[in-house]
Amino acid sequence: MSHGGGGKLTQQLIEKMFVPAFQNPYLQQQHDGAVVSVQGTRLAMTTDSFVVKPLFFPGGDIGTLAVYGTVNDLAMCGARPLYLTAAFVIEEGFLMEDLWQIVQSMKMAAEKTGTHIVTGDTKVVDRGKGDGVFITTAGVGVIEHSLTIAPAFVKPGDCVLLSGDVGRHGIAVMSSREGLRFETEITSDCAPLWGAVQALLDADIEVHCLRDLTRGGLASALNEISQSAKLEIEIQEESIPVEAQVRGACEILGLDPLYTANEGRFAAFVPEEHASKALKILRENGHEPAVIGRVQSQSRGRVVVCNALGSSRILEMIMGDQLPRIC
Amino acid sequence: MSHGGGGKLTQQLIEKMFVPAFQNPYLQQQHDGAVVSVQGTRLAMTTDSFVVKPLFFPGGDIGTLAVYGTVNDLAMCGARPLYLTAAFVIEEGFLMEDLWQIVQSMKMAAEKTGTHIVTGDTKVVDRGKGDGVFITTAGVGVIEHSLTIAPAFVKPGDCVLLSGDVGRHGIAVMSSREGLRFETEITSDCAPLWGAVQALLDADIEVHCLRDLTRGGLASALNEISQSAKLEIEIQEESIPVEAQVRGACEILGLDPLYTANEGRFAAFVPEEHASKALKILRENGHEPAVIGRVQSQSRGRVVVCNALGSSRILEMIMGDQLPRIC
Repeated sequence: MSHGGGGKLTQQLIEKMFVPAFQNPYLQQQHDGAVVSVQGTRLAMTTDSFVVKPLFFPGGDIGTLAVYGTVNDLAMCGARPLYLTAAFVIEEGFLMEDLWQIVQSMKMAAEKTGTHIVTGDTKVVDRGKGDGVFITTAGVGVIEHSLTIAPAFVKPGDCVLLSGDVGRHGIAVMSSREGLRFETEITSDCAPLWGAVQALLDADIEVHCLRDLTRGGLASALNEISQSAKLEIEIQEESIPVEAQVRGACEILGLDPLYTANEGRFAAFVPEEHASKALKILRENGHEPAVIGRVQSQSRGRVVVCNALGSSRILEMIMGDQLPRIC
Repeated sequence: MSHGGGGKLTQQLIEKMFVPAFQNPYLQQQHDGAVVSVQGTRLAMTTDSFVVKPLFFPGGDIGTLAVYGTVNDLAMCGARPLYLTAAFVIEEGFLMEDLWQIVQSMKMAAEKTGTHIVTGDTKVVDRGKGDGVFITTAGVGVIEHSLTIAPAFVKPGDCVLLSGDVGRHGIAVMSSREGLRFETEITSDCAPLWGAVQALLDADIEVHCLRDLTRGGLASALNEISQSAKLEIEIQEESIPVEAQVRGACEILGLDPLYTANEGRFAAFVPEEHASKALKILRENGHEPAVIGRVQSQSRGRVVVCNALGSSRILEMIMGDQLPRIC
């Protein structure tokens, strides 16, 4: 199970098996998607399979995730999301009403992001050989600016911006799966991110890298980037927004909000001189961002967290998964 | 189960649920892929999930299918296949050796077709919630000619060319699944089709429509096209090549070779005056093609089969699936 959790074992599986087998310069970008060129136009491509359990959770469902997840991966390449494909693996006996509801969520999510689901596929597997429905989306977006947004372009001194509070999606899915109830329902942060990215680009913010925080949470995203960039990232623990209810739920469930999944949050790496303008733009776009850290000059691919008392620790890459089937 | 078999119920599911929900001009092309335009460049996009059982069969495996299937769907849009994505849903406990072998097949298939697998995803689901591995590929190709190749462009008088004998893939998978043995092993016809399509286009053959014959076989492919084009297609039964062993196996298994799946065969609709040249080109490219019929002038979306005795019958769209999980 741990190989699919988004942590170190997933990373090893990808590095040891997929990257060497399929070797090409695109895969080596080690990004949320690949940037390719077709007749002089820079396109981003991405894909994700969604196996979230349960299919419906507070704040969204597998259909919402499938569209926003792919749209967000394109946005993280700095690409305007254009066209999506959707492939369904449906377990025999799955309720048509549930499929209908999921399809409606996808329709709404596509409309909200100005994307089109242009083609698809449906396969049905025998009862007990699937789990309701798995959805795989792929997407194509166009890059309309001249920046290269990727881990390799992170520079010492870059500020690390976080677009909002972390941990909601993981807790929403987990509490829904386990039947937990809190005073106020914790809803997933599941949301499209292209609007915010577009606003940053339109304002000529020199974005070096973007990464949405999905399975593995903030900690995995920052670790991946620090390792790809071969630079140390230092973050301030108290600057990371975590909602009180989410923090409480994490304590009850024995989870760390820094490793908990999100579906509508991203980290942006920008030069220090652009940080305050970027914060302002994100705020104007409905986000509640914070500067949570800075890229150091040490060529060590690791993440260091400093707490309010002045002590620091290394934020390890998680081995397996805190929460399986979270997306 | 029947909703995923590629027959009438699959078609209804797509027409009643997906097309109205995701309505856009691309989906309405009702083709193997969608043709979109990005900054003036015509691109084709396609996706397919592969759930074949067993994962390994004579002549290929799920990895070969996943690459060739997507490459072929792009080719059927008249697009040069360029970039693929691959998403894996792996069942807990699935053997790494098997995954390795599948990944090697994908690597070889990508190399053979000049395509690159540029990005991917891996999810793991609990034991009993999947079936070994499901693979979803999506692809992008570029259209480098000015033809529009789609069912709507089929014209009365067009010749229907078939690129080779039918039914091998279905029988290869089925006999492997059921442990049947024949004198000589029947291997899947699983193969890439872009080379043949490219040769037709390079020779300025005025291709009106292309369709690879996958689940549902020749009968479903022709029915779909006749319905989209709103034109009757008449085919000559004795002109359809079926290998003696495949025919024998079909008789034993109670299958009709016209409805049996293929993974390396396609039908091409070309004007009569281009038919003999097209046949010659396909032969030069290693295929054993035949003209199997002609598009009629009646505006009725149906397929009529004439046999050697001069009698004819309507080739119905299959309701469910003859063979589930064939691709």
